[in-house]
Amino acid sequence: MHFQGEGGMKEVQMAVNDEFYMSLALDMAERAQGQTGINPVVGCVIVKDGAIAGLGTHLERGSGHAEVHAVQMAGDKAEGSTVYVTLEPCSHYGKTPPCCELLVEAKVKRVVVACEDPNPLVAGSGIDRLRRSGIEVKVGVLRERALRLNEKFAKYITTGMPYVTIKTASTLDGKIAADTGDSKWISNAEARLQAHGLRHRHQAIMVGIGTVQADDPSLTTRHDGVDGIQPVRIIVDSRLGLSPEAKIFSAGETPVIVLTTERHDAEKAKLLMECGVKILVCGSGPAVDLKTALTELGRMEIGSILVEGGGTLNGALLKERLVDRIILYLAPKIIGGKAAPDNFMFEGIHQMADAITLDALEIEQVGDNVCISGIPVWPDNEKQ
Amino acid sequence: MHFQGEGGMKEVQMAVNDEFYMSLALDMAERAQGQTGINPVVGCVIVKDGAIAGLGTHLERGSGHAEVHAVQMAGDKAEGSTVYVTLEPCSHYGKTPPCCELLVEAKVKRVVVACEDPNPLVAGSGIDRLRRSGIEVKVGVLRERALRLNEKFAKYITTGMPYVTIKTASTLDGKIAADTGDSKWISNAEARLQAHGLRHRHQAIMVGIGTVQADDPSLTTRHDGVDGIQPVRIIVDSRLGLSPEAKIFSAGETPVIVLTTERHDAEKAKLLMECGVKILVCGSGPAVDLKTALTELGRMEIGSILVEGGGTLNGALLKERLVDRIILYLAPKIIGGKAAPDNFMFEGIHQMADAITLDALEIEQVGDNVCISGIPVWPDNEKQ
Repeated sequence: MHFQGEGGMKEVQMAVNDEFYMSLALDMAERAQGQTGINPVVGCVIVKDGAIAGLGTHLERGSGHAEVHAVQMAGDKAEGSTVYVTLEPCSHYGKTPPCCELLVEAKVKRVVVACEDPNPLVAGSGIDRLRRSGIEVKVGVLRERALRLNEKFAKYITTGMPYVTIKTASTLDGKIAADTGDSKWISNAEARLQAHGLRHRHQAIMVGIGTVQADDPSLTTRHDGVDGIQPVRIIVDSRLGLSPEAKIFSAGETPVIVLTTERHDAEKAKLLMECGVKILVCGSGPAVDLKTALTELGRMEIGSILVEGGGTLNGALLKERLVDRIILYLAPKIIGGKAAPDNFMFEGIHQMADAITLDALEIEQVGDNVCISGIPVWPDNEKQ
Repeated sequence: MHFQGEGGMKEVQMAVNDEFYMSLALDMAERAQGQTGINPVVGCVIVKDGAIAGLGTHLERGSGHAEVHAVQMAGDKAEGSTVYVTLEPCSHYGKTPPCCELLVEAKVKRVVVACEDPNPLVAGSGIDRLRRSGIEVKVGVLRERALRLNEKFAKYITTGMPYVTIKTASTLDGKIAADTGDSKWISNAEARLQAHGLRHRHQAIMVGIGTVQADDPSLTTRHDGVDGIQPVRIIVDSRLGLSPEAKIFSAGETPVIVLTTERHDAEKAKLLMECGVKILVCGSGPAVDLKTALTELGRMEIGSILVEGGGTLNGALLKERLVDRIILYLAPKIIGGKAAPDNFMFEGIHQMADAITLDALEIEQVGDNVCISGIPVWPDNEKQ
């Protein structure tokens, strides 16, 4: 994982320059991942006379942007300062006034931006606005890290669809359980703690009904001694097999959304709605139409989903090309058994050259586990 | 892999001390892996008056030991010197006279040994012999690295059975081919080159008849511009399905050994023997009795076998607990398909807590592949 341990120190080696301050702004944005909903995470550092004068981070949707907090902290020192901001300052009136105006009014001298805002409402116009006001603007400092930080936001703001991360843990033979269904535990304690960090950084968590019936999980976020953000819980359940007795109803207070099909039982739906469940009917069946489901979830302002769903759901999402990132924990175990469930179950591709590959790979050793993360790429010539 | 790139520099950080010279002796031994047959690899450095005076490596079974070469090179300087040797000097008359006598006669002052000789004919008696002659002996400098280097030798000398390494390359979903059998290519070019290095360092290579029929491999060692050692080729073929037209008969000149059962066809056996094949009948069938086979191969002085055999052979060896090391290359690919062959195919273990685990893990990134190497451990409570 990119997140853990890769702070600014390695990237800038502590020379005092634009990267030095930008990496701090990125560190601040990074820690706020998960708490801004469909908004991006942004950090801002204001430097005047060779020292930090202001710091700011966007903390919550609807509340002040990073620049607002930093300018407020800097006070009179904002005049003539250099402003480091991880995302292009906004130029439009959204839930707050445009940050460009704020920086112009504060008479800052120079603005350093990590990356342009992918939001079509901004997309370079913020940078133009600053330059037209005579402010010096430098763009692209630690750009790659900044883009990685807001990949969920970029997907949602440009497509309206949630960013989908598949997280799975398997043995070296690609199994997520023994042939009996037993799966406790595959990954190590540190990897499982990291997985709860992933939940914290996604707006929703999605599993298949099979996983709910097998493990009866609470689908809440647990950390190492601190509170975490609880994601919305989404169950893929084409026939409404979900029991009102499931632990998700007693543990955790976040909404439960059930994705089903027109073939569902109306009586059962009524029963679940009485438990507070929101039911989304996605297609005529037999399986849930996942593309329709994601489109609808996007409309409900769910901008990111962590799928911890079992091989069937993983395979269906992959087959439909609806996956933006795969995070795979591999444990040094071999379980065997042709009936044991695979981590990605779908019809299968017939030529190795047509395999789905992972791009922008991040490989990290987590104790005796290996975490492999990347962006799935489907070859154009895949035979479907 | 431990071998690649992990030279002495990192371990000793170039301070001049016992580790400094021992790491050079280990480097020399390491490079000779594969060329000493069932003998260990050994390196020796002789230091006199603060400078290297002699170097030696055991190069070939029956030829001079490392100490012999080093003492010869040191000449008069051996007297009063310190001798660094990666394995306890031998005390018995084997194919050459005992090295202990040589060091005593050369009047060396001090001997530094990385690890004791696991050979029951030596096992500490070499160290005792030196000490009784008044030579100062220090044991255990870089011991772990020295033990790792001669793990094949240690297995063979203590059990008479060959050391078995399984090498396999699979996708992230644990597949070694698509459901059509297509497998070109899973691992990247660098990983495949490393695999040829593994062949160089084993006395024999073993595959199942399925692999021969699917890929028609030559099973020779190819390197990046240099010659390599060609291993003996072993085919597991319970019914003698091997064709006299197979590429292994035209490519490569090393012996071909076929493991079969009493159920084999005598006419076919005769045909294959005319091609120069040695046939070993291992049990009454239907499958080849692998334990009997390995015992027999050990008697034939094959001390190490690299299995590149496909999931069925891998699974059978694992099930029989005949595997000493697993080296798994993982490529960032997903192929899917329940019919696609797994990397380890056997009946399967029913509880995750009873899974076979890999111990003494070595995890290395090889470009976009990950190499995971370890020693398989079977839990005592495994339900077989």
